[in-house]
Amino acid sequence: MVSTHCLRAARAALAAGRLTATALVRQALDRAEASKQSLNAFAAIDWDRALRAAADSDQRYAQGRPRALEGLPIGVKDLIDTRGLETRYGSRAYLGHVPACDADVVRTLAECGAIVVGKTTTHEFAWGVSTAHPEFGDTRNPLDRTRMPGGSSGGMAAAIGDGAVAAGLGTDTGGSVRIPAALCGVAGFKPTLGALSTHGVFPLAPTLDHPGLLGRCVDDIVLLAAPFGIEVPDSDAWVSARLGIVPAIAPIAPSHAVDASFRRAVATLGATFACSAVDDTTLFDGVFGAFARIVLAEGAVEHWRRHTPERIAAGYMPETAERLQAARALVLGDYADAQQLRLRFTARLQALMARHDYLLLPTCPCHAPALQAASVQVGDWRGSVREALMTYTAPFNVAGFPAISIPLPATDGGLPAALQIVARPGDDGALLQIAQQIEGLLAPALPG
Amino acid sequence: MVSTHCLRAARAALAAGRLTATALVRQALDRAEASKQSLNAFAAIDWDRALRAAADSDQRYAQGRPRALEGLPIGVKDLIDTRGLETRYGSRAYLGHVPACDADVVRTLAECGAIVVGKTTTHEFAWGVSTAHPEFGDTRNPLDRTRMPGGSSGGMAAAIGDGAVAAGLGTDTGGSVRIPAALCGVAGFKPTLGALSTHGVFPLAPTLDHPGLLGRCVDDIVLLAAPFGIEVPDSDAWVSARLGIVPAIAPIAPSHAVDASFRRAVATLGATFACSAVDDTTLFDGVFGAFARIVLAEGAVEHWRRHTPERIAAGYMPETAERLQAARALVLGDYADAQQLRLRFTARLQALMARHDYLLLPTCPCHAPALQAASVQVGDWRGSVREALMTYTAPFNVAGFPAISIPLPATDGGLPAALQIVARPGDDGALLQIAQQIEGLLAPALPG
Repeated sequence: MVSTHCLRAARAALAAGRLTATALVRQALDRAEASKQSLNAFAAIDWDRALRAAADSDQRYAQGRPRALEGLPIGVKDLIDTRGLETRYGSRAYLGHVPACDADVVRTLAECGAIVVGKTTTHEFAWGVSTAHPEFGDTRNPLDRTRMPGGSSGGMAAAIGDGAVAAGLGTDTGGSVRIPAALCGVAGFKPTLGALSTHGVFPLAPTLDHPGLLGRCVDDIVLLAAPFGIEVPDSDAWVSARLGIVPAIAPIAPSHAVDASFRRAVATLGATFACSAVDDTTLFDGVFGAFARIVLAEGAVEHWRRHTPERIAAGYMPETAERLQAARALVLGDYADAQQLRLRFTARLQALMARHDYLLLPTCPCHAPALQAASVQVGDWRGSVREALMTYTAPFNVAGFPAISIPLPATDGGLPAALQIVARPGDDGALLQIAQQIEGLLAPALPG
Repeated sequence: MVSTHCLRAARAALAAGRLTATALVRQALDRAEASKQSLNAFAAIDWDRALRAAADSDQRYAQGRPRALEGLPIGVKDLIDTRGLETRYGSRAYLGHVPACDADVVRTLAECGAIVVGKTTTHEFAWGVSTAHPEFGDTRNPLDRTRMPGGSSGGMAAAIGDGAVAAGLGTDTGGSVRIPAALCGVAGFKPTLGALSTHGVFPLAPTLDHPGLLGRCVDDIVLLAAPFGIEVPDSDAWVSARLGIVPAIAPIAPSHAVDASFRRAVATLGATFACSAVDDTTLFDGVFGAFARIVLAEGAVEHWRRHTPERIAAGYMPETAERLQAARALVLGDYADAQQLRLRFTARLQALMARHDYLLLPTCPCHAPALQAASVQVGDWRGSVREALMTYTAPFNVAGFPAISIPLPATDGGLPAALQIVARPGDDGALLQIAQQIEGLLAPALPG
């Protein structure tokens, strides 16, 4: 069978008649079943509809009228509604829930011919970074099954890393696309706040929620982003890009291994790009704390609107129910202060990015923690897995700036680290372009 | 000039060539200028664009291809974005703010040929019921200029009552369409929560915000509702409607005059419909309090997200700034309890409306208060104008059920009272139908 690791290769094979959509989708379904068994990467797999759609795609190819993503199998995070396919939002409270409509983001891709093979696991209501559930089980990291995949879009990153699908849809409220992408060695893209519709996506914190895309490589994301109007510019403006380097965000300095990977990458890129250190050393102060308060308040509000205490007690996992209980004590003035800090931080980040076209920083300061770990040591810092994994990603949800994570080759044969690239709001297409260039410069021998 | 009091008559005159859109719109613009002077009903009037649109409408009539609302002048509440036309949301903080896009509701009507002649005044950010502003001045009631028009869509109701336009767009978070309609003697309709898009409408409390329609009579609202997919059913099912009568909502019994008008109306309707008293006497307990907490919390959040304390202090009126300050002390658990009460109330209302197809109650328990009044006496009850005017309307925002207010003829030659009719969620078209029937039964001699 021809290589179908990346979407573009698969599409070329389909267009040339070297491969049928039915064969490609059947392979993805088989692999998804395997990833479901071995990694708990899928919550639901949709054989019937996927194969029907594949037959339709084959007909369209035969008739010479394929759509942009005709016959390409994708995954969809189980936080995102899919018409006629169980969508449980990672929660026992929604077991058997079958939405009547596709989410906007699903409909957009399906209208271009992409085929949903299944729903990938999510942390309950996307409210966590381990993608573990006491009853549904832990989702595992395809690079090391004793480790977590990150989250909350953990199943999607695991499915891509495991080769079940090349790409798919996730969501990112504080890093939920970029963190699992980083931990599983795949690419993850969070566009500008508001660029992709959240209609039909279960809300976590509405002012921070971003639908996003994951892929085996940046090019997979480029293909999936086009139907949303995000186009890679047809210019070579990227060659003059000024990169701002952020080696760490206090209080967490990256682990030795992550730091070594990051510095080696920056050194390589310095041969091509104008790189300079970011000099605003207090820029990120207080941002994670503000982020955490906003999520706690907005997240709790969404659940209180929907469910009685009885239903929450019966259907939610204890971790989520405890968060909702803790949220009751929050005083609205603290939320107000968090939103004020957000406004000031966004203005400072905007000012900083008048001097740097893109910011470069590690996506996470550490590698994937062990399954079930609640806390983690990163250099001198010890704290919750949640804070460790989100400190470098959440600021760009707070500001709403687009950001992408791409894998960095490990320095020592161990797990990969990941590079995060941040752009100005609206520069989504340009960000994909520079990410492709950087991907090529850093790992010219990556499997294509 | 032919009668243009109601939209349908104006449309017939345009279609028959007895009237040009240019003449009709010019008349509306002249009258709007007069209402701006005498009542402070308009914040902005758009001569240039309205006359250009009217010329286009005349061409379409001449070519025999008029759209559904071709050439009909309407007003738009200044809380709703209009492309290229100043939209200040009733606040000094947005003086000179010109939106780049029309709100969805404006675009829908404009695409059917309706012509926006101007922006009608709103209470600052729709957060109040008097439509008064210390610098922009008080909007006045067209029936008695010493009284307030109600709010927050006070300018729209005043403009219709004054004959400037026959109909237009408002918003209703706790009664802001129905209350000014009731106080100014016009019709006001709040559809089911979510039926009309809030995109491009400045949010007050997102879980309670409803765009709505005001008109001189129910038929004006029927015409404007059709482009939103709300159609009066083609059946006479209304004849068997079971009406549930709610003469009062504790703790406020209607004033003697309002009560007399309401009881006389119910007696008249009893000849045609099966009427019965609503027996759930504790249904509304606590609902206004829950409503007030939800608005305070959600409203404050929207402003904190947008503005620094400095901008709020400089641009907002003191009343609004004080509300935001008060909101800081709110504990999120109180908001949670309010949302829980909301869920229980909605379930009880739903159960009740298995026995009654429609509920009938006064829209407000009193007539229009004097300009600048902060408190009011209603029977034995004394309290804030806000609570007096909203106690009967806010419950149907809390539940999201559709409701309409139509004028009741005064019993004593004084100000009119108003009848509120509430339907089940989704029964918007049927509600308009029965409101038309009731309007006809109660006031067969109303100007058509």
